[in-house]
Amino acid sequence: MIESVRVIGSGRVGSALAARLRERRVDLASPDPEIVLLCVPDRAVAEVAATIEPGPWVAHVSGATPLAALAPHERRFSVHPLQTFTLARGPEQIDGAYGACTAETSAALERAFELATTLGLEPFELADDKRVLYHAGAAFASNYLVTLYRLAANLFEAAGAPPAGLVPLMKRTIENDFELTGPISRGDWDTVTRHLEAIRSDRPQFEPVYRALAEATTP
Amino acid sequence: MIESVRVIGSGRVGSALAARLRERRVDLASPDPEIVLLCVPDRAVAEVAATIEPGPWVAHVSGATPLAALAPHERRFSVHPLQTFTLARGPEQIDGAYGACTAETSAALERAFELATTLGLEPFELADDKRVLYHAGAAFASNYLVTLYRLAANLFEAAGAPPAGLVPLMKRTIENDFELTGPISRGDWDTVTRHLEAIRSDRPQFEPVYRALAEATTP
Repeated sequence: MIESVRVIGSGRVGSALAARLRERRVDLASPDPEIVLLCVPDRAVAEVAATIEPGPWVAHVSGATPLAALAPHERRFSVHPLQTFTLARGPEQIDGAYGACTAETSAALERAFELATTLGLEPFELADDKRVLYHAGAAFASNYLVTLYRLAANLFEAAGAPPAGLVPLMKRTIENDFELTGPISRGDWDTVTRHLEAIRSDRPQFEPVYRALAEATTP
Repeated sequence: MIESVRVIGSGRVGSALAARLRERRVDLASPDPEIVLLCVPDRAVAEVAATIEPGPWVAHVSGATPLAALAPHERRFSVHPLQTFTLARGPEQIDGAYGACTAETSAALERAFELATTLGLEPFELADDKRVLYHAGAAFASNYLVTLYRLAANLFEAAGAPPAGLVPLMKRTIENDFELTGPISRGDWDTVTRHLEAIRSDRPQFEPVYRALAEATTP
């Protein structure tokens, strides 16, 4: 059982994790914490880690940062919450999310799983040298989903259609287990060609991304 | 009030719409229906429309097909349910979705709105010459969301991470009103470059679509 954690960083992720640890009655103010948890921007991880007196476990919550960034600490691990966070929500936004645990020893992996479970994450092990590939996958799923919405909303506005109508469509696409419908699923290349003509005419800047996605969709 | 509709086509959309009309006690078997509703593949609309004896309203439910495909009928309109359908669900899958109504006269538009409302759709008017642009937007939102999931799941598998973890991430991205997080939102181009290196190394076929999406995401 984890009794004390010092959380460094109070951005989107750090705020939610600290609030959850507080709910779990973990001591966040111990002068001698078991774990120091770095919730700082990726590029600051190495710099902040270097300022910490060796002794406690040192961990970060970054998706793409290798464990080596925690040098000189050897008792180290990472737990990356596979979720998008907002300051508008509290610790409940952790519930249901998975947590990628990376470590170099079985003792460190055990600590990582323990912290993930205490936070309310569903833990899984992730190899240190696969973190960037994993994080690129998460970027497709979350960041580029925002991009799809913005592109679609822009086309809707150009067509005089309400972007609000996209939300039930996108939610149901997930609920239907990502079952592909629409022209490409039917092999209807005539409609794909007409989409491209309309985009070229009204929003030519969207043509490359439409084409790249059409190619990635084609079996 | 609509009392009789003949639904032609019993695929994903036709089945759900017919079941909803049946729930609303609309007569689906009248020999002299008020509306003939074509729920056939896009490329079959014109051919099937041409076989219908002129008289009733003739409508289609295709997103990108112009009203002209309903020739020779002049009493015509279109209602496109802005939703992805599966045969595994019933008429309840219509609830909450918007419906794009296209017509050439105010009487036809009134009928389109009436049918959309009877079906349980939130109707909006869409110009005939903007249908393809609108439909391209819907393809970004739904079809290409499936593509994002597949790309992300493939990268997760390559990294040894569980694709199931993508689902809560994608749902929350929508629930958080498409607030952009991640490296591009922070101007962290170093992480974007490392994503590209990892993709080039393990899944080089995904590099063009990653690049196109990164460019479309950059403010």
